[in-house]
Amino acid sequence: MIKSVAIQGIKGSFHHIVSQQYFDTTIIVDECLTFDKVVDSLLNKSCDAAIMAIENSIVGSIIPNYALIDNHQLHIIGEHYLDIQHNLLALPNQSIKDIKEVYSHPMALLQCKEFFKKHPHIKLIEDKDTAEVAQRIQLKQLRGVAAIASGLAAQLFELDILAESIQTIKHNETRFVIVKTANSELSHDEINKASIKFELEHKRGSLASILNVMSDCKLSLTKIQSLPKIETPWKYSFFVDITFDNYKHFNKAKSIMQIMAEDFKILGEYKNARL
Amino acid sequence: MIKSVAIQGIKGSFHHIVSQQYFDTTIIVDECLTFDKVVDSLLNKSCDAAIMAIENSIVGSIIPNYALIDNHQLHIIGEHYLDIQHNLLALPNQSIKDIKEVYSHPMALLQCKEFFKKHPHIKLIEDKDTAEVAQRIQLKQLRGVAAIASGLAAQLFELDILAESIQTIKHNETRFVIVKTANSELSHDEINKASIKFELEHKRGSLASILNVMSDCKLSLTKIQSLPKIETPWKYSFFVDITFDNYKHFNKAKSIMQIMAEDFKILGEYKNARL
Repeated sequence: MIKSVAIQGIKGSFHHIVSQQYFDTTIIVDECLTFDKVVDSLLNKSCDAAIMAIENSIVGSIIPNYALIDNHQLHIIGEHYLDIQHNLLALPNQSIKDIKEVYSHPMALLQCKEFFKKHPHIKLIEDKDTAEVAQRIQLKQLRGVAAIASGLAAQLFELDILAESIQTIKHNETRFVIVKTANSELSHDEINKASIKFELEHKRGSLASILNVMSDCKLSLTKIQSLPKIETPWKYSFFVDITFDNYKHFNKAKSIMQIMAEDFKILGEYKNARL
Repeated sequence: MIKSVAIQGIKGSFHHIVSQQYFDTTIIVDECLTFDKVVDSLLNKSCDAAIMAIENSIVGSIIPNYALIDNHQLHIIGEHYLDIQHNLLALPNQSIKDIKEVYSHPMALLQCKEFFKKHPHIKLIEDKDTAEVAQRIQLKQLRGVAAIASGLAAQLFELDILAESIQTIKHNETRFVIVKTANSELSHDEINKASIKFELEHKRGSLASILNVMSDCKLSLTKIQSLPKIETPWKYSFFVDITFDNYKHFNKAKSIMQIMAEDFKILGEYKNARL
């Protein structure tokens, strides 16, 4: 039974919104300012599960989070998609011209790059969390400073929305994963998606062979990424997401892939959130 | 004949170092503060070629640069690998304790995350270029401010190195591509690497089929990445790098892949810089 969950950010953050949508509003959240702390909280058993952004429709994978899941032997037990809408928030009675500095998460700053090109007088400063800046503006009554954050943060911290939906690409969807230190407790009937990782000998055709096995076993590939192995530049691991109708098909492919690939690992078996 | 090249950053930047190593020290550089401006310079014919970082051994692909090359129909005509060493630079007679703010490129800030965890009193601020901050510190005689930049920048702008090689992963290699608006002028004998892009119907086994063609035609895959299609979330394109011994093999695979894949495109044919 999952009663508490670690999130990146504080209440009002996008991770908080995901916790309420995936579980419900009674879930206890452990507010962590970095993904490293999210994982620490899970490993220290301060919470039952954790939520981590893993992929965004604009910038692609959030590679350091793949590494955290992989290195700490975490298990993905679910996924959730959220449409991210960024807003520019500040104390009331100010216009954009009054804003001199914007503090936000690097990802949020990147996603709103075009908007700020039109306002070159604003200095962009990296911060740990989107919502925490909103909270700080309210607590310290900071004028001339704005946050990039959710509508929920505007509500919680009583800030005005100076500009709505300021991200460059209006449809800006992020995929989050729910992770635990133990495997999912879903039955095989409920599982229809998996995330796997493997390494291959650098030999012609080796990836094609693995993908042929997946295809022969009726698995559909929804994502593939070759990733540089940290500390071994230009040797790549593969991170792959697959969907299937029948767990038996996955099980069969798994037993073959385990023999064919080096360092084969299942990062998680869960329910596809996009049906 | 390439006489001038657009680089991201000013003299002393890592792109400047690449321009000197790939061409020579007589190459004329057009200093651009963003990758968008690098591409503009090339499209306006203000320069003959441009240099763009495309991949890093720690954080993976620099996805927005793939999009720039793809969207503006640029051609990759060469590649170059550089070992990136970040240093903390400031005016003489200061220690790390005196530094209150560090301005640098977001990628450099990310790569030095662990170093700055040990110095939490320093505020990290995003800037456009690594070397330009070093230049500004010298011009405006900014005390209490540091840059993260190359040894070349320390030399050019007469700054002290407060800390050397401050990136988290000591081996930090970046792959740069040299792009032009026209195709490479290399002969087929000199070409042994290509970057291609394609889309596939979301059908089971479609990627495996393409990889089988590559393997049958004796192409080796050095990189694969499924990328979200901007404005069409969760529909993916594939970016693939391949190497080969004989251009005829690549030509054969190309004619088959053009029929099999949607929107098949060659981003460049060039000489493998890692032999």
